[in-house]
Amino acid sequence: MIPDSLTQLQYDTIYNIFSLVIASQLFTSIFLVISLPRVLPRYRQALTVAAIVCGIAAYHYFRIFNSFTEAFVTEAVGGRGDYVQVAGASFNEGYRYVDWLLTVPLLLLELVAVLALARKVQSSLLTRLIPAAALMIALGYPGEMASDNLTRGIFGLLSSLPFAYILYVLFVELTKSLDRQPATVRKTISLLRLLLLATWGVYPIAYLLPGLGIDGSDAWVGLQIGYSVADILAKCLYGLIIFRIARMKSFSDDQ
Amino acid sequence: MIPDSLTQLQYDTIYNIFSLVIASQLFTSIFLVISLPRVLPRYRQALTVAAIVCGIAAYHYFRIFNSFTEAFVTEAVGGRGDYVQVAGASFNEGYRYVDWLLTVPLLLLELVAVLALARKVQSSLLTRLIPAAALMIALGYPGEMASDNLTRGIFGLLSSLPFAYILYVLFVELTKSLDRQPATVRKTISLLRLLLLATWGVYPIAYLLPGLGIDGSDAWVGLQIGYSVADILAKCLYGLIIFRIARMKSFSDDQ
Amino acid sequence: MIPDSLTQLQYDTIYNIFSLVIASQLFTSIFLVISLPRVLPRYRQALTVAAIVCGIAAYHYFRIFNSFTEAFVTEAVGGRGDYVQVAGASFNEGYRYVDWLLTVPLLLLELVAVLALARKVQSSLLTRLIPAAALMIALGYPGEMASDNLTRGIFGLLSSLPFAYILYVLFVELTKSLDRQPATVRKTISLLRLLLLATWGVYPIAYLLPGLGIDGSDAWVGLQIGYSVADILAKCLYGLIIFRIARMKSFSDDQ
Amino acid sequence: MIPDSLTQLQYDTIYNIFSLVIASQLFTSIFLVISLPRVLPRYRQALTVAAIVCGIAAYHYFRIFNSFTEAFVTEAVGGRGDYVQVAGASFNEGYRYVDWLLTVPLLLLELVAVLALARKVQSSLLTRLIPAAALMIALGYPGEMASDNLTRGIFGLLSSLPFAYILYVLFVELTKSLDRQPATVRKTISLLRLLLLATWGVYPIAYLLPGLGIDGSDAWVGLQIGYSVADILAKCLYGLIIFRIARMKSFSDDQ
Amino acid sequence: MIPDSLTQLQYDTIYNIFSLVIASQLFTSIFLVISLPRVLPRYRQALTVAAIVCGIAAYHYFRIFNSFTEAFVTEAVGGRGDYVQVAGASFNEGYRYVDWLLTVPLLLLELVAVLALARKVQSSLLTRLIPAAALMIALGYPGEMASDNLTRGIFGLLSSLPFAYILYVLFVELTKSLDRQPATVRKTISLLRLLLLATWGVYPIAYLLPGLGIDGSDAWVGLQIGYSVADILAKCLYGLIIFRIARMKSFSDDQ
Ligand SMILES: CC1=C(/C=C/C(C)=C/C=C/C(C)=C/C=O)C(C)(C)CCC1
Ligand SMILES: CC1=C(/C=C/C(C)=C/C=C/C(C)=C/C=O)C(C)(C)CCC1
Ligand SMILES: CC1=C(/C=C/C(C)=C/C=C/C(C)=C/C=O)C(C)(C)CCC1
Ligand SMILES: CC1=C(/C=C/C(C)=C/C=C/C(C)=C/C=O)C(C)(C)CCC1
Ligand SMILES: CC1=C(/C=C/C(C)=C/C=C/C(C)=C/C=O)C(C)(C)CCC1
Ligand code: NA
Ligand code: NA
Ligand code: NA
Ligand code: NA
Ligand code: NA
Ligand code: NA
Ligand code: NA
Ligand code: NA
Ligand code: NA
Ligand code: NA
Repeated sequence: MIPDSLTQLQYDTIYNIFSLVIASQLFTSIFLVISLPRVLPRYRQALTVAAIVCGIAAYHYFRIFNSFTEAFVTEAVGGRGDYVQVAGASFNEGYRYVDWLLTVPLLLLELVAVLALARKVQSSLLTRLIPAAALMIALGYPGEMASDNLTRGIFGLLSSLPFAYILYVLFVELTKSLDRQPATVRKTISLLRLLLLATWGVYPIAYLLPGLGIDGSDAWVGLQIGYSVADILAKCLYGLIIFRIARMKSFSDDQ
Repeated sequence: MIPDSLTQLQYDTIYNIFSLVIASQLFTSIFLVISLPRVLPRYRQALTVAAIVCGIAAYHYFRIFNSFTEAFVTEAVGGRGDYVQVAGASFNEGYRYVDWLLTVPLLLLELVAVLALARKVQSSLLTRLIPAAALMIALGYPGEMASDNLTRGIFGLLSSLPFAYILYVLFVELTKSLDRQPATVRKTISLLRLLLLATWGVYPIAYLLPGLGIDGSDAWVGLQIGYSVADILAKCLYGLIIFRIARMKSFSDDQ
Repeated sequence: MIPDSLTQLQYDTIYNIFSLVIASQLFTSIFLVISLPRVLPRYRQALTVAAIVCGIAAYHYFRIFNSFTEAFVTEAVGGRGDYVQVAGASFNEGYRYVDWLLTVPLLLLELVAVLALARKVQSSLLTRLIPAAALMIALGYPGEMASDNLTRGIFGLLSSLPFAYILYVLFVELTKSLDRQPATVRKTISLLRLLLLATWGVYPIAYLLPGLGIDGSDAWVGLQIGYSVADILAKCLYGLIIFRIARMKSFSDDQ
Repeated sequence: MIPDSLTQLQYDTIYNIFSLVIASQLFTSIFLVISLPRVLPRYRQALTVAAIVCGIAAYHYFRIFNSFTEAFVTEAVGGRGDYVQVAGASFNEGYRYVDWLLTVPLLLLELVAVLALARKVQSSLLTRLIPAAALMIALGYPGEMASDNLTRGIFGLLSSLPFAYILYVLFVELTKSLDRQPATVRKTISLLRLLLLATWGVYPIAYLLPGLGIDGSDAWVGLQIGYSVADILAKCLYGLIIFRIARMKSFSDDQ
Repeated sequence: MIPDSLTQLQYDTIYNIFSLVIASQLFTSIFLVISLPRVLPRYRQALTVAAIVCGIAAYHYFRIFNSFTEAFVTEAVGGRGDYVQVAGASFNEGYRYVDWLLTVPLLLLELVAVLALARKVQSSLLTRLIPAAALMIALGYPGEMASDNLTRGIFGLLSSLPFAYILYVLFVELTKSLDRQPATVRKTISLLRLLLLATWGVYPIAYLLPGLGIDGSDAWVGLQIGYSVADILAKCLYGLIIFRIARMKSFSDDQ
């Protein structure tokens, strides 16, 4: 699905947006580490995990960025021409799944950790959410790698089962625990879950596109932008909201 | 607008000034992080953001610097000759907008955070300033990318609306809150706003130049120098004044 | 045993899994350093060592990764072809032994340190475990480098003696000390030892493969994946369980 | 003035001495940051600035080093031959002035900060020393870039005026304040000023050399060594003496 | 003395051992910095210096490693052939002396600092040991660079004088101060001095080899291994023993 050729505008757009993601993830991570002492100890686990998630994403986007700039080249002076795939290098999309395998379980851990629930409830949630998340990514990978749409479809379907289960746990089971949260943060937590739903939905939709025959360099550029925006929202914004919740709870716990 | 050729003096001048910006931003950022424990906790948010802003700028100037040195080459021994645009690489000016998209909203956040206003006033200011800042940059980008002066003009005009709104909020609304600041810092805060006005003005003026037919390699070199100086003032000096205000308020709060 | 040629799928798989190991080790290391203040001082030695172990592994996988990407090249556009060994560079497998020489003794130190035994018991355990571990690796190295199966066999056997001794100390002698551990963590420590047994077993088994005639590029790819997974489990997961034990003991000590 | 060719011994000497400067500056900087908690809060500003100065110098020497190794090349096996200027790259001496522009004012700030004078005296000293230092460097730059000796001489003279003024302030005005320093440190502060005088003197002298017809590769190598040694003394040793003064004052203040 | 050609085994051995030194020095340095808060403030100077020493060594071995891999190349597929000196690059042995110039005085400072003697005794020891150490290295350098054995011999002899003096101070004068150390650490300090004697002795012996006609690629490879092992023992192990002493004294001082 990687296009053979990109216009300069397409090339520069992806270039700039990948660089934007690196900067966003890296500096969100640094911000969270620096801000750690500003929340009560019991919320630091959540913030540390949020910082780690953004750090991992910065690392992977750094590789994605380099993979992209090496894979597409032009011979035009000042880069004012088309960029084509080079001999000897490839744009490696597998990185995304490597990233997700590490970060998606951690994103759920972040959420559960910031709630600071009873130890028992917390570990019950995690022992269900984390394996489901890992399974979801692991099942999607062979589908993504497959060359025929049938295999792609089957693995996509299998991967959707743990996805549905995660959503069920988050929206049905977790809701019960929300009552024990301070009133002021309940709204922010709901917002956070909505953000999670909205951004996580991007990934299975993007997965569908090739099956729907949506192809070509424009679709591909759009897809890269979509992934990039979703990654900023699902990790940076998400982590910053976690920080906000931790700050609010630190205040209300102190009283 | 990127010139086809630069003299060695022009090349070296840009080279040195870009390196100066990297050093300034990077070490201001490090200085602010190290100095964090020297202000009261309530001002650390402002300082952390100031450090992040300079860190992001250092990252982007590092890329701008590399983009520049790769885009212009010479064949003269000892570099004593003209530098021309190379085949296969381009000087990527889009970076600046990526940088602004992240740092301009944060610069306003810094300012509001150091005032340590009532929670309500603060969030009212931020929910107006931050979207306006993001909108201003986002509207300027298509104008900058456009090849005709009409599109450039229209988007420039649209972008000026949120700009005017930001200035209105800063100079009319914020003034009311200044009365609640300790007398000793009021003057410094006014100074800070003036610095903001003077440096932020550089960017829309630079945007106008190509439309006014001011072109050629000298104008372009001047523009790069102008951007660089404005970036040092608007981020490093600004951040250091924020630090000074935070130190002064830390003293007066303690008494 | 290094294959002359890899398919793109094989190349990309190793590429992605090596990158996964780098990310896992690096960010586990950072996580542990950040989390240091969250356990009682008496457990920080264990956590510091765990962080150092993962840091060393990140460093070595970074070199292994670069060694791999430089050693195998393709001429196909977009990398869609076979990758063959290049002239002038080699995939350097010796790194693994350098890594083990440093990390295997430290992994045992981690384990002993987290138990926080009496100073005397602790040093008696360490003065036996650490030299045995160093000896085990040092004896395996010449076998690995040998070209004939006899030498390989002999050194493998010699190396197995200290290995057996380590297992004896861990499973017989250490068991006595376990009674003095708080009841809640006893189970987790047993789990940790099982993890150690299961993952450390991978390395001598992998050592046997060439002798058993299991060769070819598929076996080699499998071996690299096996090493990678074992390294993540034996260092990252292991370190995180150490962290968990330290947290649990910090709670129970405080009461 | 850059020589066309260097012997291997000359090349290796500069190479090693530049590397020595990088290591000295970088690790002095790290040392000072780590040692920050070991002085009283009121002296941390001085130490932070000292660390930043050495950090900036490490950054610039890293660039100077790379600029040097890229600018001179040999074709001899094992590097056992002459090194000549390469086509397409230049040894960029402008870096030094960029470095001075940032570090020379900061060196004066360091000195004033460690004295911990009354707020008023302090700001009176700084508002005179810092602009003078910036002016001195800014006036020297066009002279250094000029190709004729007249321009060089005129700007050198102009630059000497603020230099003389700085020395006047340091040796006449500051002396009055010294009486208020604890007796034990008065000697060390005098020593520090002497070090400043001796090392800062190197730069205008080096500036004179081309005008005096002292040229050729030996003179140039000598100049690079002179700059390097002066930079180590004027930044690292100077910073370490500042640290010593801060330690001594921390003790005497505590009593 | 640098050999013209290395077998693959020789090349890989040096490659792996240099990488081992980098990892050892870098992570010992990080370990010591992380462990700083675990000793009493009065021992932190010693630990900081130990960390700086290992950091400086990591930096230099990083350069030595790169210098080595660039200086020797092969044309064989998979690197399975001889490695010869390349045109245009050299293996730069001068780095070692640059490293020693910085680290040898610091190693003596470490030792004196951990003893935490009376201020007066301490400065009397340092004002004799540090200049002697610097002189010893500075006198050895011209001998190492000389091409004839006579010059080599003379400077070697001159360099041995300060070396003898250092040993005299350490083993005669220092012994008197040892009585004031807590009984538990006296043995460890003696051990440390023995380690110093045994490892420092390696360097003058290695210096003698070329004069004794011990030459050829095997001798050279042996020498590199010898230097590497000595550097690990004289810096990493030495620093870790310093850490142990500081821990022990922290305990006994607290009682
Ligand atoms: C359901 C489903 C998928 C879900 C992927 C998700 C939910 C990914 C989330 C990624 C995140 C949150 C990244 C963070 O930045 C796949 C694997 C595409 C395969 C098709 C079916
Ligand atoms: C009004 C206006 C603009 C304003 C840009 C500004 C105000 C940028 C500020 C940048 C800063 C503060 C950078 C920090 O270092 C544009 C986008 C050029 C487009 C034309 C109209
Ligand atoms: C018994 C034996 C071996 C054991 C190796 C081990 C036990 C390695 C453990 C490595 C670890 C734990 C790495 C951490 O990530 C060798 C040397 C292969 C040689 C053959 C015999
Ligand atoms: C008077 C004078 C000069 C002074 C330069 C100085 C005083 C530089 C100090 C640099 C330092 C202290 C660097 C720190 O490491 C110039 C500009 C050469 C121009 C000629 C006249
Ligand atoms: C006596 C003598 C020498 C001594 C060198 C020493 C003692 C070096 C110590 C290095 C250390 C301790 C490095 C740390 O890792 C030289 C210069 C070879 C020259 C010949 C005579
Ligand atoms: Na490219
Ligand atoms: Na590929
Ligand atoms: Na260039
Ligand atoms: Na372009
Ligand atoms: Na490759
Ligand atoms: Na090899
Ligand atoms: Na060179
Ligand atoms: Na030049
Ligand atoms: Na090589
Ligand atoms: Na050389």
